[in-house]
Amino acid sequence: MQIATPYLMFLGDVPDRLAAKTAYGIVDWRPEWCVGQLRLPGCAADLGIPDLTLAEAMAKGARTLIVGVVNAGGVLPEHWVASIVAAIEAGLDVASGLHTRLGSVPAIAEAAERRGRRLHDVRHSDERFDTGKGTKRPGRRLLTVGTDCSVGKKYTALALERGMRAAGFDADFRATGQTGVFISGRGVAIDAVVADFISGAVEWISPAAAPEHWDLIEGQGSLFHPSFAGVSLGLLHGAQADAFVICHEPTRTRMRGVQHPLPSIREVIDLTIRCGSLTNPDIRPVGIAVNTQALDEAEARAVLDRLAGEHDLPATDPVRFGVEGLVARLAALFPAGAAA
Amino acid sequence: MQIATPYLMFLGDVPDRLAAKTAYGIVDWRPEWCVGQLRLPGCAADLGIPDLTLAEAMAKGARTLIVGVVNAGGVLPEHWVASIVAAIEAGLDVASGLHTRLGSVPAIAEAAERRGRRLHDVRHSDERFDTGKGTKRPGRRLLTVGTDCSVGKKYTALALERGMRAAGFDADFRATGQTGVFISGRGVAIDAVVADFISGAVEWISPAAAPEHWDLIEGQGSLFHPSFAGVSLGLLHGAQADAFVICHEPTRTRMRGVQHPLPSIREVIDLTIRCGSLTNPDIRPVGIAVNTQALDEAEARAVLDRLAGEHDLPATDPVRFGVEGLVARLAALFPAGAAA
Repeated sequence: MQIATPYLMFLGDVPDRLAAKTAYGIVDWRPEWCVGQLRLPGCAADLGIPDLTLAEAMAKGARTLIVGVVNAGGVLPEHWVASIVAAIEAGLDVASGLHTRLGSVPAIAEAAERRGRRLHDVRHSDERFDTGKGTKRPGRRLLTVGTDCSVGKKYTALALERGMRAAGFDADFRATGQTGVFISGRGVAIDAVVADFISGAVEWISPAAAPEHWDLIEGQGSLFHPSFAGVSLGLLHGAQADAFVICHEPTRTRMRGVQHPLPSIREVIDLTIRCGSLTNPDIRPVGIAVNTQALDEAEARAVLDRLAGEHDLPATDPVRFGVEGLVARLAALFPAGAAA
Repeated sequence: MQIATPYLMFLGDVPDRLAAKTAYGIVDWRPEWCVGQLRLPGCAADLGIPDLTLAEAMAKGARTLIVGVVNAGGVLPEHWVASIVAAIEAGLDVASGLHTRLGSVPAIAEAAERRGRRLHDVRHSDERFDTGKGTKRPGRRLLTVGTDCSVGKKYTALALERGMRAAGFDADFRATGQTGVFISGRGVAIDAVVADFISGAVEWISPAAAPEHWDLIEGQGSLFHPSFAGVSLGLLHGAQADAFVICHEPTRTRMRGVQHPLPSIREVIDLTIRCGSLTNPDIRPVGIAVNTQALDEAEARAVLDRLAGEHDLPATDPVRFGVEGLVARLAALFPAGAAA
């Protein structure tokens, strides 16, 4: 599955910015793919890109309408259907992150069939995967892991892609969640895969590559999250990571959605190495990525300095302070010409 | 979902005994539920129970036709459809472990609709689960874990159910795989659940219970199996096990389906405690269950004695030598009246 670019971003009439979080993420990381936005009356989100009619979007080369919004229960509202059908009629594919499958809405299915347009439901996977093999394949792999859900694993992998490419590395972001799939135009929402195929799906997402090529694999959940650790472990085993970056949000006191306290970064490093060794005995931590949004700059610097010292690893906020330290550490640990 | 009992066992025309493994498991553990078998010409398996016509099975009170066989690709052969439709016409529900959904075969769907019979596809789950909460709920729980797949986790849990009930415990087997679902008439094939809901599904399978009630939860895979460890970890977190039994097959040298060596029992104990502590800090091992089928009795006794000594735990082959030692250990560690 490859989602055709560029995109016209559909926001419907979402009531706030948060409901369009996925769309904002796409515009942040792939502004060159987002020709404009299509909003309905009452929409409270604004991506800061031109409002376009379908005709204008087509004239700008748009290929896919992205439904990058969330909604109570992930359901597609009735009154959005006409806009989606009109987009298909105009010649766009449609990609959606909603729980409702686009093809389950008769008017949408019928229009897509008639116009020969593709429908992508990134929250579902129709790909048939093998079970994981667990054996090493060529190419280098870095996985972002977390002390919790929603601590910056996707942003860290994307910032690394940008920073490593700028430093001359051959590197690709590999998406394992729906926003990441929109941002890279490919990948699999791993939490929607049938449990038996978690690690096999990750092996599919990150196939054999050139010896010095880096896959930067977006992590999910946390080995310490009681709801989602199974996903995180299958992801770790399928990634067969050579390197991992620990992602953290320093002001959080409880794990997202449950009553459990956050693990320490040390615990995450230890358990990641212990479990990750099963499919890659050489796995090692290469840095710490901290989401310092809630801290002022002095506080942020202090937290990063402390963590770097405690763990003898480069520590940064990838969005605020860049990834130079992480890239330098990777260059030192994995010198060119040394790949097996 | 509760599968109505008793069962008429449908074997089709499977080419060997192995293809009917699920059916043999059901007859082993629930002979009282199996009124007879229905076989097509050429069937090479024989459950050792009476061959019945549909009319005879109905006269004996059968409620559900069990398609307890495997087939290349899990596909339902065309020439079995007529038998299944006839069973529905005769008044039976149908439960299948094949990959093909019964309801996806128009003749079967139509017959079930017309006759008001239920179709159970135990390899699929249409139940909507919550994500796991990870918080302790009343009742006691034991999980069978393994050094590998297919080492006796289901049989151990079933043998414990039988032995604990005989010893006066209030105990229920909780199925997490398709054969187990047929054997208990309920449960969920956990490897078929969407990855995000593994631990939530286990919490659903094993709900809050009386303080001294034991759920004996069938484990799946192994924390050390590179294909399926994610399932095993989600299961461990959802089970919130107070106790676990390590299951092992002593003649196996490589993990099933992959190139990896088996972990030691010590490694399994350590990682199970480490990871299981997240949702139950009091988790502890209570015994070792060894499938000694490949050993003569003296060899089997020797292996069990050695393991018991090495780990200071009762060690047995539950099928060959019973579970008295395990039950005694549970009674000692969890005295009546001590439940929180």
